[in-house]
Amino acid sequence: MKPSQPQGTRDFSANVVRKRQYIFNIIRNVFELYGFQPLETPAMENIETLMGKYGEEGDKLIFKILNNGLDNPAKAEKTKEGFEDVLKGKTSKSITERALRYDLTIPFARYVAMNHGQLVYPFKRYQIQPVWRADRPQRGRYREFYQCDCDVVGSRSLLNEVELTHIYLSVFKQLKIDVEIKINSRKILAALAELCGGADKLTDITIAIDKLDKIGIEKVKEELAQRELGSNQIDIIEKYLSIGGGNEEKMEEAKVLLASNEIAAAGFEELKYVLDHTNIEDKILSLDFTLARGLNYYTGIIFEIKAKGVEMGSIGGGGRYDDLTGLFRVSDIPGVGISFGVDRIYDVMEELQLFPEEVQIGTEVLFFNLGEKETKAAYRLMQQLRGNAVRCELFHEAVKMDKQFKYAEKKNIRFIIIIGSKELEENICTIKNIQTGEQQSANLTEVELIKDILK
Amino acid sequence: MKPSQPQGTRDFSANVVRKRQYIFNIIRNVFELYGFQPLETPAMENIETLMGKYGEEGDKLIFKILNNGLDNPAKAEKTKEGFEDVLKGKTSKSITERALRYDLTIPFARYVAMNHGQLVYPFKRYQIQPVWRADRPQRGRYREFYQCDCDVVGSRSLLNEVELTHIYLSVFKQLKIDVEIKINSRKILAALAELCGGADKLTDITIAIDKLDKIGIEKVKEELAQRELGSNQIDIIEKYLSIGGGNEEKMEEAKVLLASNEIAAAGFEELKYVLDHTNIEDKILSLDFTLARGLNYYTGIIFEIKAKGVEMGSIGGGGRYDDLTGLFRVSDIPGVGISFGVDRIYDVMEELQLFPEEVQIGTEVLFFNLGEKETKAAYRLMQQLRGNAVRCELFHEAVKMDKQFKYAEKKNIRFIIIIGSKELEENICTIKNIQTGEQQSANLTEVELIKDILK
Repeated sequence: MKPSQPQGTRDFSANVVRKRQYIFNIIRNVFELYGFQPLETPAMENIETLMGKYGEEGDKLIFKILNNGLDNPAKAEKTKEGFEDVLKGKTSKSITERALRYDLTIPFARYVAMNHGQLVYPFKRYQIQPVWRADRPQRGRYREFYQCDCDVVGSRSLLNEVELTHIYLSVFKQLKIDVEIKINSRKILAALAELCGGADKLTDITIAIDKLDKIGIEKVKEELAQRELGSNQIDIIEKYLSIGGGNEEKMEEAKVLLASNEIAAAGFEELKYVLDHTNIEDKILSLDFTLARGLNYYTGIIFEIKAKGVEMGSIGGGGRYDDLTGLFRVSDIPGVGISFGVDRIYDVMEELQLFPEEVQIGTEVLFFNLGEKETKAAYRLMQQLRGNAVRCELFHEAVKMDKQFKYAEKKNIRFIIIIGSKELEENICTIKNIQTGEQQSANLTEVELIKDILK
Repeated sequence: MKPSQPQGTRDFSANVVRKRQYIFNIIRNVFELYGFQPLETPAMENIETLMGKYGEEGDKLIFKILNNGLDNPAKAEKTKEGFEDVLKGKTSKSITERALRYDLTIPFARYVAMNHGQLVYPFKRYQIQPVWRADRPQRGRYREFYQCDCDVVGSRSLLNEVELTHIYLSVFKQLKIDVEIKINSRKILAALAELCGGADKLTDITIAIDKLDKIGIEKVKEELAQRELGSNQIDIIEKYLSIGGGNEEKMEEAKVLLASNEIAAAGFEELKYVLDHTNIEDKILSLDFTLARGLNYYTGIIFEIKAKGVEMGSIGGGGRYDDLTGLFRVSDIPGVGISFGVDRIYDVMEELQLFPEEVQIGTEVLFFNLGEKETKAAYRLMQQLRGNAVRCELFHEAVKMDKQFKYAEKKNIRFIIIIGSKELEENICTIKNIQTGEQQSANLTEVELIKDILK
């Protein structure tokens, strides 16, 4: 039996960890600059916290944890009943009391509901942690992956939307990814639904529109027809979806189409506020009335991020919701949040070769091991360099230089430092740049000079 | 039903996350300076990777994950059989194919075995990730906690032990925790076992000695008697456990006691090498022949860390093992590793108040919101300060200054910046230090000056 990791999960070796950390650090740093505070919640939640929050399909994709001690004879009756329930597709607390978190939003809502009295509102938190889903593994879809969210709750101010837009801009600027930030308001979609036969059509319309990118307008129309929208209504929606031009033109056109609708007016005002206050050119922050976002809980401004110059789904998204914690019986906590799709961002950066070379450097210097006495001098110098933030290794045994050299090459170490018997006599070391072949000597006491050579 | 997190797990709010990150960052940084490379493995492993690796007790404490789709009628027969097995205390792959990792060592061994051909040896990896155990929760013991390990595999060189000792020293120096690094060799214990009736007594002796700190010498002697050691043998062990003095004296005394035993001689040589090459004073690196370490797989030098000035179990430990990956049928990969007990380190630092004040600062500046026009100017300045790495917030709505001030106080924000109509007229801002009450003005264009005031 060859050892392996579970299907749909990954080991991240040094190179990948470093690149991922590079992305996380930039995002974390921007979150902090914008006044967001870190939160970490446990990997497992009580099963009742998670079940029923992600729809029927979601429930099936939650990884449940088997209770321990199921062989306890005193509980055998209950356990057997529980098994019967599981066989019928039900969840039983006699079998599983806990499950792995499926996203970061519900644990956050649970945290806010639990600590409601102690929190200072508006409460701005960010969270960067893995989540687990029992999805069928396929290219780019994993059973364990990181989410990276920030949310403000307890404020209806559109300043939050302005700030979140700037967070996106700032992160992607630092990552050097050209993006388009698409923005819309769920209120506009709600108005469209009203115009097309009543608010109860909102979900149908949203779901169909959400597929526009993937399936094209004709198929969207077919889907709308299947969802029992009339041809007049479909005409209006097609007109709506074809709105084009710059942000201002789009806004004018949409206003004509949705004229006199009150919800639409509120939506346009929101959008105007964010566009005016962010002051970002149309090409980067673009009004996109075809943007719908699948999730039902959004109620105001919604965002989605597309990377330019690559074929890739959205690399981020978010929006405003009215009631985060209602599910946990704490009501009236509205909020707005965005998230970053780290796995896709990683893929974009690999494809466009955007990771800086420094990120991929581990050890900077290898000290050759050339015998007992030489090693003592090498160790001394190495400790001084480490004290000066230079990442060093000393080869673990005094074997042929050839073998030590190969180790440095394979590990992509840029410099070797040689202290042999000759060097030791003269109290110097030889520093060699493996890439250029350049070689220099320095006195063992000249730590500053050596440090400079290694830069 | 009040929402809660599962028993034995914790939410970490901002303050705690920051302090924990402070510890992690120092450890990670030292690992990197010593040439160790990061590795991350998935939270879940295949069940056969974990089961049977931690003893019978360990197996029971592993969190197993329920397979999804157990209501599939096509598999009902197998599922029912599986349930029968679970009721009998057996693990069944029809019920659970995956489990949460229990430590970082076995996933590391699995990774090394899987990637054996591609790795460059000696392979030096570090890993900082949570693990899960279904232990009964109690003070200081959690069901989810972080481990923080570094290991070198593929090398028998004692230079590794020297390096690991210096890693401990460097980390605790930076954390400002006074520690005693206790060191021993399993070979000395093996020699003692030989002297006391044969190698098969090693486990008995180790287990009993391991309890010395907790139960005292008399109870250890009782336990040894129960484990069928004779009174002569117990006398030798008592003599061994009473060895005292400085490192050199202890070594001499032990040599007398274990004279002429070959394994002991090898052990003494190892210890002498590490003591000589680390060159650390006895009070900090101290030879402790009573140190045993519970885990059976250690074969050479072993370490354990005690914090001075607090009542607290060991805050780190480790040692050399002969065969990491034998369990996965890749043999002859010896190694040595250490780990840091981050939860206890955290507690020690809290008790001794060792966390620097800066670590606990989130947002540095709150901009007051004093109306539409004023806010635009505030936002502009705020973005410039953020561009200069100052963490800022703008209050989300233009309410009474009193309320905004309270927000700053509650969030422990040190400075407020006020741009009211008067300031706007003069193109200035007022900067107030909440702690000192000190107040200064600066021109809105003088970003550098403002930054300096905020330091």
